[in-house]
Amino acid sequence: MRTASAGPEIERLMALLAKLPGLGPRSARRAALHLLGKRDSLMRPLAEALGDAADKIGACSECGNLDVTNPCAVCASPGRQPAALCVVETVGDLWALERAGAFKGRYHVLGGVLSALDGVRPDDLNIAKLIERAARDEIVEIVLALNATVDGQTTAHYLADKLAPTGVSVTSLARGVPVGGELDYLDDGTLAAAFRSRAAV
Amino acid sequence: MRTASAGPEIERLMALLAKLPGLGPRSARRAALHLLGKRDSLMRPLAEALGDAADKIGACSECGNLDVTNPCAVCASPGRQPAALCVVETVGDLWALERAGAFKGRYHVLGGVLSALDGVRPDDLNIAKLIERAARDEIVEIVLALNATVDGQTTAHYLADKLAPTGVSVTSLARGVPVGGELDYLDDGTLAAAFRSRAAV
Repeated sequence: MRTASAGPEIERLMALLAKLPGLGPRSARRAALHLLGKRDSLMRPLAEALGDAADKIGACSECGNLDVTNPCAVCASPGRQPAALCVVETVGDLWALERAGAFKGRYHVLGGVLSALDGVRPDDLNIAKLIERAARDEIVEIVLALNATVDGQTTAHYLADKLAPTGVSVTSLARGVPVGGELDYLDDGTLAAAFRSRAAV
Repeated sequence: MRTASAGPEIERLMALLAKLPGLGPRSARRAALHLLGKRDSLMRPLAEALGDAADKIGACSECGNLDVTNPCAVCASPGRQPAALCVVETVGDLWALERAGAFKGRYHVLGGVLSALDGVRPDDLNIAKLIERAARDEIVEIVLALNATVDGQTTAHYLADKLAPTGVSVTSLARGVPVGGELDYLDDGTLAAAFRSRAAV
């Protein structure tokens, strides 16, 4: 990404911007020029927000969520149902479920899924803490909200085995036709799963 | 972009990231999570690079290019041909021409193009300085490297009129089939222009 006439400061800025997901070398260049054109309204505030967030935000020692407090706002909230835990891969998944407003219990962020290909083993994930939390008296149900990928499902089976001795009820998200989905565009696996899990109207 | 469980620090970071060209609310969220996962290798260095660039990089008072020095490295370089000026809309265009290595003279960044729709008038652009530079003894040719858009071409005609009294030769980039271009996929205007400007093999 040679720019010839730009100094090392701007080269470095572009190289770092290009590491963000969704930005390549070309869009990083556009972003850098955009930022330099909005120094006081965007560039300096962004620098400050990045430093601020890096300093203040940490992982919740209870569930692994990111927040400025520890335990996080979800774990600390007295309004949450204490009987259910929802296991997710990433904080992004936790946010997605919170936006959907579908779950009123607390979460547990694994930090990834088991993957032979990527060399992710049980010890690399936040699993020991999950077993510990699952063994507490108040927990009745654990919902495995992992991605419907091969690795996600392998991890779900592994967790179900590990959680069996605790006696809690382990469930997972339903498979089926997404809202607004058209049958003709759905893959065979989804259609077959939706058929198997058909329910009375 | 409600995230419910994220604090104001992360909301602010996502809102600022979403203002970058190429990033929307969803990719800004992904970028924020990616950054929080790479605090020391990416997040803090990016904060520092942004602040650093905002402080050090400024517009060249001669040509309008962005650089840490004033005049910029291109204007200050003794290796540049003093007889030619290349007029571009933006610093991004200047960088594109430098990457192509097609021009060995110096540049002049207009900072935009005339636009009735966007209310951009001659006084809003870096035109007075261009006329002043064009009048200098050493300047023989001015290449108008403006975008082949309606506004770009309107601006080129306006500049050609303004530069006529100085007596310098005013040229513009050739129109034609791009390298690697297939005729069947080219628009009519480009094909017609390429035909009109056909040259002996």
